[in-house]
Amino acid sequence: MPELLPRARASRESVFARMSRLAAHYGAVNLGQGFPADSPPAFLLEAARRAVGTLDQYSPPAGLPALRDAIGVDLGVDGADVIVTSGATEALNVLALSLYGPGDEVLMLEPVFDVYVPQTLLAGAVPVTVPMQLSSAGGWSLDLEALKAAVTPRTRALLLNSPYNPTGTIFSREELAGIVTLARKHDLWIISDEVYDELYFGERPVSLRELAPERTFTVGSAGKRLEATGWRVGWIACPPGEAGAGVAANIAGVRQQGSFCSPTPLQAAVASALPIARAEGFYEGLRAEYSARQTLLADGLRGLGATVFMPRGTYFLTALHPDWSAETLVERGVAVIPGEAFYWQHPAPQGLLRVAFCKSRDEIARALERLSAVTAAS
Amino acid sequence: MPELLPRARASRESVFARMSRLAAHYGAVNLGQGFPADSPPAFLLEAARRAVGTLDQYSPPAGLPALRDAIGVDLGVDGADVIVTSGATEALNVLALSLYGPGDEVLMLEPVFDVYVPQTLLAGAVPVTVPMQLSSAGGWSLDLEALKAAVTPRTRALLLNSPYNPTGTIFSREELAGIVTLARKHDLWIISDEVYDELYFGERPVSLRELAPERTFTVGSAGKRLEATGWRVGWIACPPGEAGAGVAANIAGVRQQGSFCSPTPLQAAVASALPIARAEGFYEGLRAEYSARQTLLADGLRGLGATVFMPRGTYFLTALHPDWSAETLVERGVAVIPGEAFYWQHPAPQGLLRVAFCKSRDEIARALERLSAVTAAS
Repeated sequence: MPELLPRARASRESVFARMSRLAAHYGAVNLGQGFPADSPPAFLLEAARRAVGTLDQYSPPAGLPALRDAIGVDLGVDGADVIVTSGATEALNVLALSLYGPGDEVLMLEPVFDVYVPQTLLAGAVPVTVPMQLSSAGGWSLDLEALKAAVTPRTRALLLNSPYNPTGTIFSREELAGIVTLARKHDLWIISDEVYDELYFGERPVSLRELAPERTFTVGSAGKRLEATGWRVGWIACPPGEAGAGVAANIAGVRQQGSFCSPTPLQAAVASALPIARAEGFYEGLRAEYSARQTLLADGLRGLGATVFMPRGTYFLTALHPDWSAETLVERGVAVIPGEAFYWQHPAPQGLLRVAFCKSRDEIARALERLSAVTAAS
Repeated sequence: MPELLPRARASRESVFARMSRLAAHYGAVNLGQGFPADSPPAFLLEAARRAVGTLDQYSPPAGLPALRDAIGVDLGVDGADVIVTSGATEALNVLALSLYGPGDEVLMLEPVFDVYVPQTLLAGAVPVTVPMQLSSAGGWSLDLEALKAAVTPRTRALLLNSPYNPTGTIFSREELAGIVTLARKHDLWIISDEVYDELYFGERPVSLRELAPERTFTVGSAGKRLEATGWRVGWIACPPGEAGAGVAANIAGVRQQGSFCSPTPLQAAVASALPIARAEGFYEGLRAEYSARQTLLADGLRGLGATVFMPRGTYFLTALHPDWSAETLVERGVAVIPGEAFYWQHPAPQGLLRVAFCKSRDEIARALERLSAVTAAS
């Protein structure tokens, strides 16, 4: 028998998929994988039911024009620079294949979102990670000096995430300005993964696109914004080109080799939903609700002896607990993501867990009860 | 500004996307891109409308278990060896990334389906094409000796398509046996793109999987079978492994880096539709209808001086016409695909066109009228 390539033999089930599978197996409350317990809003569902049976055939690989325009209006960019993808995962993969290959290094932070490393390796490039600082008192912080020190002549791109999964960090305008200065000095691309752009709990995040439009690709996700993670509608906002003739055309060319186009009826539904979500204050409602659930979860975890790092964005919190491990918790009825899942080159902080609060209040309460039983028994 | 990689700068709009765009621009009847004029069947649409609002979140990267099982039953393979993808395009891309890379050669036939060459290049490997023979009297035929002669020590895989887009060829059991002997002699993977497996006009095609299960990946498409090309639900049937622990697990690992999972509500709809399509004779109806449209189109084209090669499968026919070019026809109101789109290393036969008959009888009649006007004017 022939063999798979090493890059394929090294590919395996992600920790998110695995923990969801284990959660189902053990009947655990799933505070692991980041999908919401609530249904998508009715205005999105109704639009999809209308589109099914009407818009069922191929759409342009760059996306339905109405959706590109709607995303452009929402982000304040030209729709011609927007490329629709089958979820943000594909957006990141298309950028990996387009921006770096053999001989190139890509700078990212650690803890690192699960797909960044394998996608970089599949593209033939080398991931270089710089650890975030963690202190029990101050939480997570960016080490800009360490980032600067990690740049080499081979560095091609910075791959960042703000609001940041899993730490919940939102980089300040000053931190972003430092990152932009670094990128300009070494002529690096910036990939800014902003799928949680509407999920923040204080000031609105600044997008790297605003500070360095000439070199920043912004990755976004309708699934995260509209609570439909299984719909596979994401996007890339490319650096602006002349009348769509810029890099966006090539990015669309690579994207069409991936999944050709995103699901057409679901694209149409998102196109109609984006302005409604904005007009009806949908995101404000989401933030208020998740803020309450975050407090419920954080208070409960603290009561059980965990050190909790409150996120400024995303629907995850990170916590340290000396006695808990994700592998045993799932058997006891609560699925969370182990900190090691986000570390590749550096050791994970001992006892680090990522816990999702995009789950119902009931689920969160039930998870806390079970964790309480685990703590009482130990 | 940094630059895109050469592999990205070489990526551009596909001829299918471009001709569809030009067709819209010129108000042309679109006999170019292969998407059907008819709506998907009601049993599929109703299932999707039910799933939207119920199954909206991530599903496992390998696919919804119910869909993997339904595909397994339909193909006569174990569902554990089936990996669901975002359309057949992604299935082919995942296999390219998994099976070949730098230093490897991939054998394919010419005319070659549009994505095979760029996907091979993105994976870092070298496409090697062997031309099909074309004679005005006998149509298209496989040159097995030329295929044998093209194998080198670097050859890793054979990438084939049957029923074959664009030629409409269905390889005979004897031809397939010759291909399998070659693959076994040189220990090659076989990628068998069978997205038109239910679109044939004579004997049922033989799948390469039946002859060489140990080394064959079969690519399939719900979009082609169920007339919903924009839904992005395709699959890979992998060589059988032990209880899902074979190559399928690694293929799923690579696939999750692409678009993570296929659209969940549309997967659920396809899962419920596949057995209904089989039980209700949906594919028989499709074949009967397309057979009639094929005759309508072929007779019309012959009457206008074209040499038509009747396909044994797919919903395309190829034709030669001394005076027509796709570039001018679209301006005159009829979009077709130029033969050159399917040639990469060898010259295309002069005047070769691919014409789709997955369009309504009205559209076909209107296209023939316009072509008649073109012919009269020239």
